[in-house]
Amino acid sequence: MRISWRRTLFGRPLPTEASVHQRLTKVKALAVFSSDALSSVAYATEEILLVLVTAGAAALSLSLPIACVITGLLVIVATSYYQTVHGYPSGGGAYIVAHENLGVWPGLTAAAALLIDYVLTVAVSITAGVIAVTSALPALYPYRVEICLLAIALITWGNLRGVRESGTLFSIPTYAFIALFLTLIAIGLVRLFSGSLTPLPAATLPLAAAGTSPLTLFLILRAFASGCAAMTGTEAISNGITAFEKPEADNAGKTLIAMAVLLGVMFLGITYLARALQVVPIEHESVISQIGRLVLGTGPLYLVLQAATALILVLAANTAFADFPRLASILARDGYAPRQLANLGDRLVFSNGIVALALLAALLVVIFGGRTHSLIPLYAVGVFLSFTLSQAGMVRHWHAVREGSWRTKAAINGLGAVATGLVLLVVIESKFSHGAWLILVLIPLVVWMFRAVKRHYIDMQGQVVVGTSGRRVGMQASVPQQSKVVVPLSSLNWASIAALRFARSISQDVTAVIVDVNPQSTARVQADWQSWYPKVPLVVLESPYRSVITPLLEYLGEVDCCNPEQGLAVVVLPEIVPARWWQHLLHNQTTLQLKAVLLFQQPLGGDARIVISVPYHLKG
Amino acid sequence: MRISWRRTLFGRPLPTEASVHQRLTKVKALAVFSSDALSSVAYATEEILLVLVTAGAAALSLSLPIACVITGLLVIVATSYYQTVHGYPSGGGAYIVAHENLGVWPGLTAAAALLIDYVLTVAVSITAGVIAVTSALPALYPYRVEICLLAIALITWGNLRGVRESGTLFSIPTYAFIALFLTLIAIGLVRLFSGSLTPLPAATLPLAAAGTSPLTLFLILRAFASGCAAMTGTEAISNGITAFEKPEADNAGKTLIAMAVLLGVMFLGITYLARALQVVPIEHESVISQIGRLVLGTGPLYLVLQAATALILVLAANTAFADFPRLASILARDGYAPRQLANLGDRLVFSNGIVALALLAALLVVIFGGRTHSLIPLYAVGVFLSFTLSQAGMVRHWHAVREGSWRTKAAINGLGAVATGLVLLVVIESKFSHGAWLILVLIPLVVWMFRAVKRHYIDMQGQVVVGTSGRRVGMQASVPQQSKVVVPLSSLNWASIAALRFARSISQDVTAVIVDVNPQSTARVQADWQSWYPKVPLVVLESPYRSVITPLLEYLGEVDCCNPEQGLAVVVLPEIVPARWWQHLLHNQTTLQLKAVLLFQQPLGGDARIVISVPYHLKG
Repeated sequence: MRISWRRTLFGRPLPTEASVHQRLTKVKALAVFSSDALSSVAYATEEILLVLVTAGAAALSLSLPIACVITGLLVIVATSYYQTVHGYPSGGGAYIVAHENLGVWPGLTAAAALLIDYVLTVAVSITAGVIAVTSALPALYPYRVEICLLAIALITWGNLRGVRESGTLFSIPTYAFIALFLTLIAIGLVRLFSGSLTPLPAATLPLAAAGTSPLTLFLILRAFASGCAAMTGTEAISNGITAFEKPEADNAGKTLIAMAVLLGVMFLGITYLARALQVVPIEHESVISQIGRLVLGTGPLYLVLQAATALILVLAANTAFADFPRLASILARDGYAPRQLANLGDRLVFSNGIVALALLAALLVVIFGGRTHSLIPLYAVGVFLSFTLSQAGMVRHWHAVREGSWRTKAAINGLGAVATGLVLLVVIESKFSHGAWLILVLIPLVVWMFRAVKRHYIDMQGQVVVGTSGRRVGMQASVPQQSKVVVPLSSLNWASIAALRFARSISQDVTAVIVDVNPQSTARVQADWQSWYPKVPLVVLESPYRSVITPLLEYLGEVDCCNPEQGLAVVVLPEIVPARWWQHLLHNQTTLQLKAVLLFQQPLGGDARIVISVPYHLKG
Repeated sequence: MRISWRRTLFGRPLPTEASVHQRLTKVKALAVFSSDALSSVAYATEEILLVLVTAGAAALSLSLPIACVITGLLVIVATSYYQTVHGYPSGGGAYIVAHENLGVWPGLTAAAALLIDYVLTVAVSITAGVIAVTSALPALYPYRVEICLLAIALITWGNLRGVRESGTLFSIPTYAFIALFLTLIAIGLVRLFSGSLTPLPAATLPLAAAGTSPLTLFLILRAFASGCAAMTGTEAISNGITAFEKPEADNAGKTLIAMAVLLGVMFLGITYLARALQVVPIEHESVISQIGRLVLGTGPLYLVLQAATALILVLAANTAFADFPRLASILARDGYAPRQLANLGDRLVFSNGIVALALLAALLVVIFGGRTHSLIPLYAVGVFLSFTLSQAGMVRHWHAVREGSWRTKAAINGLGAVATGLVLLVVIESKFSHGAWLILVLIPLVVWMFRAVKRHYIDMQGQVVVGTSGRRVGMQASVPQQSKVVVPLSSLNWASIAALRFARSISQDVTAVIVDVNPQSTARVQADWQSWYPKVPLVVLESPYRSVITPLLEYLGEVDCCNPEQGLAVVVLPEIVPARWWQHLLHNQTTLQLKAVLLFQQPLGGDARIVISVPYHLKG
């Protein structure tokens, strides 16, 4: 029953040998890994314009130069990652590159930044996509948080089924989005140069903030930093190299170039059209929508464009679902995260990581009430921090390798590191009070957690691993002595009889104990005892304060003191197991409490108390 | 450490013998049991006026006749409960009376109604009290839910310390409220008759709904039903008789009379003053506050009156904290509720019931966002349902007893049952769509839960109790056979060595099992095995789908089939116990999952699998 339910939902289990066949073709990989980067075209231009417009309409003409600089930066970063893909063919995300070349702390910092960013990617993309839908269907607006959670659940489900299926599932909308945007740009340019397209009348500035600031260098840098939102997701492919078909590095590198070219063309095209058409950001309609209406009219093609924009934003979350679990599994493999994150599920995906990401993102969506705008300022810090660390790491890498044209490569990466480092400073400066501070607090916290987990695993290894010296202790050869066994009872019923039966099968030194909280019941047990168990001693414990636990613990302490050579007494508990889940609330509260207390009791002299529940199953 | 923390918070444990000394004097009992009833004076008059005003200013003159009828009803109900207190000296709430005289279903219906009402009493009183505070201090308004939860937490704490202390704790505000209200009425009457008090100018009707409905009989009945809010809490004393000092019934009866007289005087006095001063309900100020300002001015006495009103509303919740756990313990004793609700805590209070009530009330406060107004319509249905059932039960009681003036007593109770029954119908009719429907759904649901719990306990008794025939089976005499023991391992470390050591101490038939999910680790164990445990067989299980659980379950199934006479194989699991709570997340996920699966596995042939964890404690 349980298994067939799982199969219907998630597909049949896949054997480990199937692993290598579950790889992605380049076409599918582009859909899986680039939706995050490509979807940012939907808002990056608007972000630039929104900053520039505060300095007046004339400042808007700076948007195209800024977009060109960002595209240049994109070329640098993509080139850097292309080098990384080949330098680290088994997967070279910022964590691995920074860890290997810059040391543990920069590596963990990059990992923390990336993990936080993946969660934000899911939250931002889903909320932005859902807002796009609710803008078209205002009746759904009050349910936007619920719709976000539903979307997260659907993507989680798709990913739990396995990576090949998710490639198929997400190819159509990604390629539809690319095709629609390229068509939009092509038609726009043709109509513009053929003169059949009239720009908007010279800008009236409808926003409240418009034209209120002077055009300073800082403002231009801020516009540049805002536009850098276009570059989020560029690193996705370098983290996911091992998901590609063989030869992995070559395929990943080609996919990375394709993605960067598409992103650059679309971003520059949209920014050019926005400028040529004199589009200005307004309150109730996105820049993309304005361009779309002007170029395509309000017919079906415009509506499909809007739908595809909404869809790719939702699906951009999928990039994080491919990468977060993979990075978490690498961290778990290195001992910085709980081990279960490294377990491949029976569909060959890192199920625990997928579920963890979904829960964290859902939490963010609920906390921020499904508002994209509040999440955006948290977003860029982590991206540019990991860019900077990764590229700085690559510089060190080339210095260590010193092969071929290493000086050129180091120079490219060095340029990238300096540029993204500067962007990082601008982002922190301009968005600190809007939420960037939270990320600057969270990253050290996550790094500290990594270290605590690692320390614990190392410490445990030291305590648990059997050294070669242990082999000579010889404790394993002889058959160990039987333990003293204590069986607490409340009455003489089939459950306690089963417990006594088991206790007597494992040791000849069994004592039954009853805590006297109900005198009638105690008297009944005492009356019947001799005829049932003439050879088993029955101890009655007083309990003036009606607690069952305290007298039992005191008694066990006495027993242990009297028999130090036998080790701690074993406790055998009768436990009634009801047939339905809710009936558990009606039973065994004392047993549960006793087990919890005994589990957390500090063991005396390193020895540990063994508590055995003997289940007695009730029939429905 | 843990114990001293509990003692500081809740006081030292009390022995069972102290129970009889923990009783309440009449003065303290009045404070504990009557704050609910008395506090309703603060809003009952206003509720009447709010209905009447919809029929215009002239209709307001009906408020005094209606208040007189309600006071008459109060006399009837109080007399009925006075008879109940003497008829049921060991505690005669509606549940007991209806259960004994009308049967199981009416009894459980009354119990369900009462439990729900106790929760509502807490929620309504706390929210109303906090709103009274935030009206005076508007800056606190955004935090009203938090303040409500804090107040609930404080009252819970007081009650967990024990009933005598809570009597002392709550006496002062209750008596302050009584004194202030009686003073208000006395000064008001004196000033009114001495002519030094001028009524408000003849009513202008500021409310939007004012004067829009015709003055029908139904409207008058609705005003009456609303005013009956004054009567909530009248039954509290009859439920709590056993908390009184001896002679319990006499003391409880006298306290009941005192409470009814105080309630009647205060309610009539306030309603008379409201009428004589021509006070009309307005949006932003309560009727009590208007009367207070007119009679006392805006000096310190007025402010103290408002503070005492707020305080008694918060403390009214305490009535429920005395009664809910007591009724729950009676139901638990009868098998209708989980047994742990019948356990006296170490401070001689029903701790589990207190905590359950606090959690449910806190949930209601959060769901309804701290808004009293939304909770009020849910409130009256349960009160009058239990009044009606209780008094109908008393009629049957007197018919069965047939002693002394039983006809008179039966007639009084009969009158009460009919009157409260009619009020019940009016309440349901006039408040159905405002939330009363929810209670009409909840009561059958709770009754169904009572029955399910009872059925389960009866069923369990049948399966667990050892009949006299069992004694002759003789299974207890011989020492039982040793079980086959299976020890699953992942590697050969100190934890698995401890598990193997214990397994070999309890049986000579031990098999170690390793699931091959990590070939290196498996090979290492196989290489070392012979030198460690030459006599213990090691079985290696294949796992193509990387699951540890499934191959183990299959193996256990095979073992059980081969040895039907030995019973199910015992599983001994090595379990690493970390020193800190968060480290548990880093360990034993597979062990936990295996234990859960084995626990819920349907036992074959009634037999149950025993799973033993052998803990290995890590040092901090």
